[in-house]
Amino acid sequence: MNTEAVPSPRARVVSGMRPTGALHLGHYHGALKNWLRLQATHDCFFFVADWHALTTHYEQREDLEKNVYDMVVDWLAAGIDPERVTLFIQSRMPEHAELFALLAMSTPTSWLERIPSYKDQIDKNRELATYGFLGYPLLQAADILIYKAAQVPVGEDQAAHVEVTREVARRFNRVYERPVFPEPQALLTETARLPGLDGHKMSKSAGNAVAMRDAPEVVEQKIRTMPTDPQRVRRVDAGDPARCPVWPLHRLYTDEATRAGLEQSCRSAGIGCLDCKQPLIEAIQREQAPWRERADDYLANPKQVHWILELGTERARAVARKTLREVRAAIGLNY
Amino acid sequence: MNTEAVPSPRARVVSGMRPTGALHLGHYHGALKNWLRLQATHDCFFFVADWHALTTHYEQREDLEKNVYDMVVDWLAAGIDPERVTLFIQSRMPEHAELFALLAMSTPTSWLERIPSYKDQIDKNRELATYGFLGYPLLQAADILIYKAAQVPVGEDQAAHVEVTREVARRFNRVYERPVFPEPQALLTETARLPGLDGHKMSKSAGNAVAMRDAPEVVEQKIRTMPTDPQRVRRVDAGDPARCPVWPLHRLYTDEATRAGLEQSCRSAGIGCLDCKQPLIEAIQREQAPWRERADDYLANPKQVHWILELGTERARAVARKTLREVRAAIGLNY
Ligand code: SF4
Ligand code: SF4
Repeated sequence: MNTEAVPSPRARVVSGMRPTGALHLGHYHGALKNWLRLQATHDCFFFVADWHALTTHYEQREDLEKNVYDMVVDWLAAGIDPERVTLFIQSRMPEHAELFALLAMSTPTSWLERIPSYKDQIDKNRELATYGFLGYPLLQAADILIYKAAQVPVGEDQAAHVEVTREVARRFNRVYERPVFPEPQALLTETARLPGLDGHKMSKSAGNAVAMRDAPEVVEQKIRTMPTDPQRVRRVDAGDPARCPVWPLHRLYTDEATRAGLEQSCRSAGIGCLDCKQPLIEAIQREQAPWRERADDYLANPKQVHWILELGTERARAVARKTLREVRAAIGLNY
Repeated sequence: MNTEAVPSPRARVVSGMRPTGALHLGHYHGALKNWLRLQATHDCFFFVADWHALTTHYEQREDLEKNVYDMVVDWLAAGIDPERVTLFIQSRMPEHAELFALLAMSTPTSWLERIPSYKDQIDKNRELATYGFLGYPLLQAADILIYKAAQVPVGEDQAAHVEVTREVARRFNRVYERPVFPEPQALLTETARLPGLDGHKMSKSAGNAVAMRDAPEVVEQKIRTMPTDPQRVRRVDAGDPARCPVWPLHRLYTDEATRAGLEQSCRSAGIGCLDCKQPLIEAIQREQAPWRERADDYLANPKQVHWILELGTERARAVARKTLREVRAAIGLNY
């Protein structure tokens, strides 16, 4: 008789990221860092949400392939462990589309129309009024339910989407009288919003981003030329970190004691802005060093990334197919 | 050098039928007879539209499997030739679901909302207001476009659906700047509407149907007990075929000369109604004889039907996959 303790299985989480290409520090602190925490404690299914990218940007899809691989390299560079985590590409999983189509049959259109973000975005951009964009939360529900996720990491603005997923699961189970889908919990995660170099939202297109793989001299250059407190015109003017776009970076990268000192020196004009920025530059460069090293390995051997995704896709597919078999049986389509 | 003439390829048609179970004469004359004509002239893809059945009846899906196989046996019994025609089951083709999801991205919701039959049916039954039912014409477009059908056989009431398919194809080709999809033509077909035994629409649930595989004595019994001209109460009363539910059957089954004779005899009370019905009974029994024979073969060997569908599914899949590769390449998803 085997008396070894059976390890309790890790709860499964499913999370996707749109293929935005090479990631920047905003992505890292806003999402990827959370994935790194989750991979230590959960059974993680992380995927490239390339179909989702089409729901809003089907006309801007140049370089989709490059964007997918650049992003996955950054996941791996940050330390996502392909041995521990199931990594795959959504568009390689027709199983998601099949479940999407099947869930559609029992999901009232009104559930999708009433999601606040849907109305907002449609009002802003009539081009978005496609059947696919309307069904975006349902496709997301399929992404999650097909792996029977126990939890879904979300920011607060996405809680409504998880709620739809729960409703869709509940309704399916009730209509077809079988408890096929567990209702996933929203795993509200605290993530840091890192503003861009100009104090606005960090984004590649705004030109205010530090890429995860920016070279050390590029980081130095970008931080050195960052605007600071606009009222600190000359070295001798006292500043106020509360008005300075550099300060949120310090909050992430500098320990509290050092930060207290810097704050005082800023307010008393005891240091220049470049002095204040120097430890930040070094901290970012330090953070990036292992990323760059891992990324270089993967970039030298691009086949490896393909293999990781291939393996992850097969792993995901095995789970997805099993769920689909249950779904088809519940509906009565198992012939 | 091969100097043989290359036969010009037959135009492809795609058509589906919902799995209603064993078919009746209304199905035969309204649709299946047309399929038999088409298989002689076209490259036919005929499928069991079991997903479509779910768009309107997801809560009544008992016996789906039995209904699928009973219907396919009737196709084969009627003379659909599996060597000539590609027969398959929609729900076995996740490729349709994938194309459905991809077409959704570029298809305005308004195109689906404005289809007249959509509004009508929603107004009649709020339960139908699901995302799947709204997307029904788009799933149909995917069914058709994935095989690059040249033509789609439709009754007049479905012309709007083919028009949506054409619009969806056009828009996809324009948005992704590649002529992936030909626009299928509606193939308006003249089909006979055969009323039921009571003069109303023939349907199994109304109990007024003659099944394709009804035994000869059942046919006899059903026709003999059919109501006739209500004003012909006694044998000596003159009748009028225009008022008689039996007459539309004569129009389909009896030649013009015989019919002229019968009409006159009816109007002059020269024959009784059972005399009038007798040639009809025989004509239907004659029509059914080869169906029953073929059906008996298939029923004695149910594996054969499975194999036919298996083979058809593989044939359909090869075409569907090729189209999907082109679709993915056009969108930029071919990695
Ligand atoms: S000293 Fe630092 S916090 Fe103060 S204005 Fe300059 S960069 Fe900003
Ligand atoms: S004779 Fe024939 S057509 Fe005339 S009422 Fe009887 S069944 Fe009908």
